[in-house]
Amino acid sequence: MAKVSRDMTPSARAGSLPASPIRRLAPLADAAKERGIHVHQLNIGQPDLAPPESITHLLERASSEELVYAPARGASDAVSAWQIYFSHHSVDLEREDLLITAGASEALLLALMATCDHGDDVLMPEPFYAPYKGLLAMTGLNAIPVPSGPDFGPPDADTVRQLVTPNTRAMLICSPSNPTGTVYGQNDLEKVGAVAVEHDFFLLSDETYREIVFDGPAAPSALAIPGLDDNAVVIDSVSKRFNVCGLRIGCLASRNRAVMDAALELAELRLAVPMIDQRAVVSALTSPRPYVDTVVEAYRERKDAVLSALGNIPGVVAHPPGGAFYVVAELPVDDAESFAAFLLSDVAVNDETVMLTPMSDFYATPGRGKQEVRIACVFDSETLTRAIRIVGEGLETYPGRTTI
Amino acid sequence: MAKVSRDMTPSARAGSLPASPIRRLAPLADAAKERGIHVHQLNIGQPDLAPPESITHLLERASSEELVYAPARGASDAVSAWQIYFSHHSVDLEREDLLITAGASEALLLALMATCDHGDDVLMPEPFYAPYKGLLAMTGLNAIPVPSGPDFGPPDADTVRQLVTPNTRAMLICSPSNPTGTVYGQNDLEKVGAVAVEHDFFLLSDETYREIVFDGPAAPSALAIPGLDDNAVVIDSVSKRFNVCGLRIGCLASRNRAVMDAALELAELRLAVPMIDQRAVVSALTSPRPYVDTVVEAYRERKDAVLSALGNIPGVVAHPPGGAFYVVAELPVDDAESFAAFLLSDVAVNDETVMLTPMSDFYATPGRGKQEVRIACVFDSETLTRAIRIVGEGLETYPGRTTI
Repeated sequence: MAKVSRDMTPSARAGSLPASPIRRLAPLADAAKERGIHVHQLNIGQPDLAPPESITHLLERASSEELVYAPARGASDAVSAWQIYFSHHSVDLEREDLLITAGASEALLLALMATCDHGDDVLMPEPFYAPYKGLLAMTGLNAIPVPSGPDFGPPDADTVRQLVTPNTRAMLICSPSNPTGTVYGQNDLEKVGAVAVEHDFFLLSDETYREIVFDGPAAPSALAIPGLDDNAVVIDSVSKRFNVCGLRIGCLASRNRAVMDAALELAELRLAVPMIDQRAVVSALTSPRPYVDTVVEAYRERKDAVLSALGNIPGVVAHPPGGAFYVVAELPVDDAESFAAFLLSDVAVNDETVMLTPMSDFYATPGRGKQEVRIACVFDSETLTRAIRIVGEGLETYPGRTTI
Repeated sequence: MAKVSRDMTPSARAGSLPASPIRRLAPLADAAKERGIHVHQLNIGQPDLAPPESITHLLERASSEELVYAPARGASDAVSAWQIYFSHHSVDLEREDLLITAGASEALLLALMATCDHGDDVLMPEPFYAPYKGLLAMTGLNAIPVPSGPDFGPPDADTVRQLVTPNTRAMLICSPSNPTGTVYGQNDLEKVGAVAVEHDFFLLSDETYREIVFDGPAAPSALAIPGLDDNAVVIDSVSKRFNVCGLRIGCLASRNRAVMDAALELAELRLAVPMIDQRAVVSALTSPRPYVDTVVEAYRERKDAVLSALGNIPGVVAHPPGGAFYVVAELPVDDAESFAAFLLSDVAVNDETVMLTPMSDFYATPGRGKQEVRIACVFDSETLTRAIRIVGEGLETYPGRTTI
């Protein structure tokens, strides 16, 4: 505990956080903007779609009633709305099975803290949403990478089984997946869930993109799988399905009452989630359709446009997503992060360029994802097509071009 | 790591959280309400005052612009507003010295995580705001109690010095203090700060109640003390000064850039704080007066009323606060928690009763605070006076009455 020598430096925990490529690329994007270049930010999942009118309307009517502490679990009418919402997905929950959170981020933080202790292992199918790695570092947990199935499919149950150790406490999946768009079907969840039951670990299931699937009405929830009541813990968010990223409303849901009680105790320490934001989505949660259908149709058209535009670039391999609104593409480059930086610094077509997310940070295995980028389909098809063309032009002049 | 035997139970971390007396008393309060009894909730700091009109007005104008992700550090105009706010308290900060958070709770969580590692010790003058203990348990830190000075005054510098070990990484103070109302003067901060500099630990200063003082315009900030730039980390919140507990807006501030960079990295994992809530307080932050003056005057009258009413009850010792809006009272009872439960279950005057906060959980030293309660002055003087009279009537019939 050599405290004396470390002086007033931050915690080792903070130092162990993986560096963010966004942070490294952001100054380049700012510089491009200063040069008068429009940067198409395909790097973050902040769509341009308008939220449901019920939300903007409710915000207009916000009164000082919304300015008091909500209960730690959530405002009463908001908890009811989440119950109704889940019932539409064949998931019947009691109020005590639910906890409203500050987005999926807080839901995951609470899930990790309520289920795992410092030093425990968490199985993570690769590639995964990059901030998961930071949340694990923050909570002192070890990310154990699990290879995906073919074409980023769900991992094989036997592969998972072989990676389980006495230190395994949870497996963290995301379906539909950010970044790959992989959707875990009922059968996939049953198989992975069986391993969780067999070896007593939690199945933490991030279902933020639940309705955004291109085949069928929604991805099945881990809470709809029989036999997983003790193991399944769902992380959810309204950010993407209702285009209200800025509200920061999500929830944690599980039928494991001891885990939910523990999560509530942890949540009580932060007192409450903003009442006004919780209430704003009540109506949208109880009647999500037809709004979410229009959202899905928008993304279907957009991902098709991106896949089509990527198909026109020699040497690029794009992976059609089953859901969510990202496309993972392998590029013929030495290093996707260098290429992303090059696009921002050296490429502009009619004063436009593109910001992509390099994917090394979406892996726990060193060296993986070096040629991959994540493209967020967050603008209209025409803009996306133009942006991908700029990527293609960038590849033609990029000095580190390779073949895949 | 005997994982196999623990089955699907929550983490030991969750189990290590101190139980909440609020949680234990809440069912009794609910039962009293069901019996048609009005429960004066003097147990929580949720005041009844109206927020500034600028806030309710801004919320009315909230548009879909407020529904996108804010930057992790905070919305640009909101960060500027915090800079202006601090400049009114002789604290000049750069934007990078600030981070907008989901209330003081998140600010403290980030402060603890950015400065301390699992197993580190944090010095805590007793009594302290009870949830601090839970936040330390959550982050794997040890609460080391520091005795207060006379009448809950700031601890003596030598007392602090004697408790420092190589494992000490921070000291957490609250000024004006919840629960005692103790205000650290410039001189107190200098003395405690000198020990922090001498022994290389962080001075985490929760200044949520900054303006709510009954002598002078505001409590001095740890950031206004010369020589503490590397050590002082301030936790702040608008909840109490603007009566917007439900917005959940606070901030973390320090001139230790490495700590703020670390905190920002941690904050990036939760993406953002709700934009609408951040923006709602911009105007109030830049022009807090005269609104906060009316707030202070209201609390001055209220705490005087509570002190006066307590003075009429034989055997009760009340501690006049220098700031904040709580009064700590020692009661002639065997156990303040039992008495608080008795009030809820067995006492009603004209169908009214009172909920108090027993203070054992405000101490890390076992057995301390057993006769103390915290009274939140969150209603008008007349109501408070009536409520304290009910406490007095309760004491007359309480079977565990003692003398102090």
